[in-house]
Amino acid sequence: MVESHLTMPLQNLDPSIATTTTPDRRQRRSTEIRERLFRAALGIFAKKGYAETTVEDITNAADLGKGTFFNYFPSKEHLLAAFSDMQVGKLAAAVEDMRIHPQPMEQFLESLTVRMTEEPARTPEVVRALLQANLSSSSVRGLMQEKNARSEALLTELMRLGQDRGELRRDLEPLQLARVFRQTTFGTLLLWSVYGDASLPERIRTALAVLWTGMAIRKPVTPRPPES
Amino acid sequence: MVESHLTMPLQNLDPSIATTTTPDRRQRRSTEIRERLFRAALGIFAKKGYAETTVEDITNAADLGKGTFFNYFPSKEHLLAAFSDMQVGKLAAAVEDMRIHPQPMEQFLESLTVRMTEEPARTPEVVRALLQANLSSSSVRGLMQEKNARSEALLTELMRLGQDRGELRRDLEPLQLARVFRQTTFGTLLLWSVYGDASLPERIRTALAVLWTGMAIRKPVTPRPPES
Repeated sequence: MVESHLTMPLQNLDPSIATTTTPDRRQRRSTEIRERLFRAALGIFAKKGYAETTVEDITNAADLGKGTFFNYFPSKEHLLAAFSDMQVGKLAAAVEDMRIHPQPMEQFLESLTVRMTEEPARTPEVVRALLQANLSSSSVRGLMQEKNARSEALLTELMRLGQDRGELRRDLEPLQLARVFRQTTFGTLLLWSVYGDASLPERIRTALAVLWTGMAIRKPVTPRPPES
Repeated sequence: MVESHLTMPLQNLDPSIATTTTPDRRQRRSTEIRERLFRAALGIFAKKGYAETTVEDITNAADLGKGTFFNYFPSKEHLLAAFSDMQVGKLAAAVEDMRIHPQPMEQFLESLTVRMTEEPARTPEVVRALLQANLSSSSVRGLMQEKNARSEALLTELMRLGQDRGELRRDLEPLQLARVFRQTTFGTLLLWSVYGDASLPERIRTALAVLWTGMAIRKPVTPRPPES
């Protein structure tokens, strides 16, 4: 669960592979090339920006012919969508883990956010590219809407779990809590990525501290004398 | 304060005009043309998207010659930046108002957010265009960073005021609270604008309800029996 994107196999990039337990040599080779293209692309996005990156830049960096790219991804946009799939896969695994091994929700949300925003998602250029894909006027946005819907559904399930366990406030619907959580994390990534400075960990910590106080079920606090 | 963008004079678009109390005819004409270009542009952004809109589309809709545009805005990006200026102007006026006429912070933040997200900022295409400008890899992002810094400074001042008045938690710096507030509102606009559906008012209300609980100074709550 804590292993980095850069070393974990990218099963999420091809659902057909995840279900095959003994892939033959051709399949292994195919997965390897897909991964190579994917990592090369993220590296170049981070260096020269998403819009400015051409398919040829990616295949050059991956040391592959340009035509190879299209055997794996119909377009540059689909490669970006594959990255979102990977993020949704991480989220699904985390929620499943929470269901089987209950953990305090506050720590869980914190470690989930840290995990979802670690490398390579921590590169400002990659974050900007992903957010831009969500905002683009083309069909890419349609792809992204699907991923968004899946993330929202998974987080709604998580929030319901938190309410059932008596940790989260019940005057809001699980879907409402899920949306507030996503809006907070996306907004944090958005405003940080405009600068891309070193403030991300601090921004996330603070945003989650405020958010947690706002989402938690209110326990009585003992009155204390006013601050001087 | 509550009048719509669509009817208020756009002084923020040209600081030199705001300081002149008796503009002569030429200046009035200049302001009028600038406004016409601005409204025409927002209308077309909303219809065909920001990236797809050409300067010619804008001048056609405004019934002006193409060359006229560049007398008022160096580029399409500068027109977008002018819109941000208008938003920052609204924020500055609201913070000034709060300093002179103290209001409960919770209601103030709610009415501020409603005011900042009303027409024309409520058009999903305009919101997407503004967010994309923040994410673009060109010089536009530099322009946007300036507006962001001004907004952040104004909100930091507001949060300090709220702390001084004993309404906001004091374990976080005013700057941290300002960032969390901006991240929440931008994140809400971002995720709504991907769909552009009717959910914005509900999303804002819920996000602010959670945020307020998280930002307010904690008052003791009376214990009550657990829910059955």
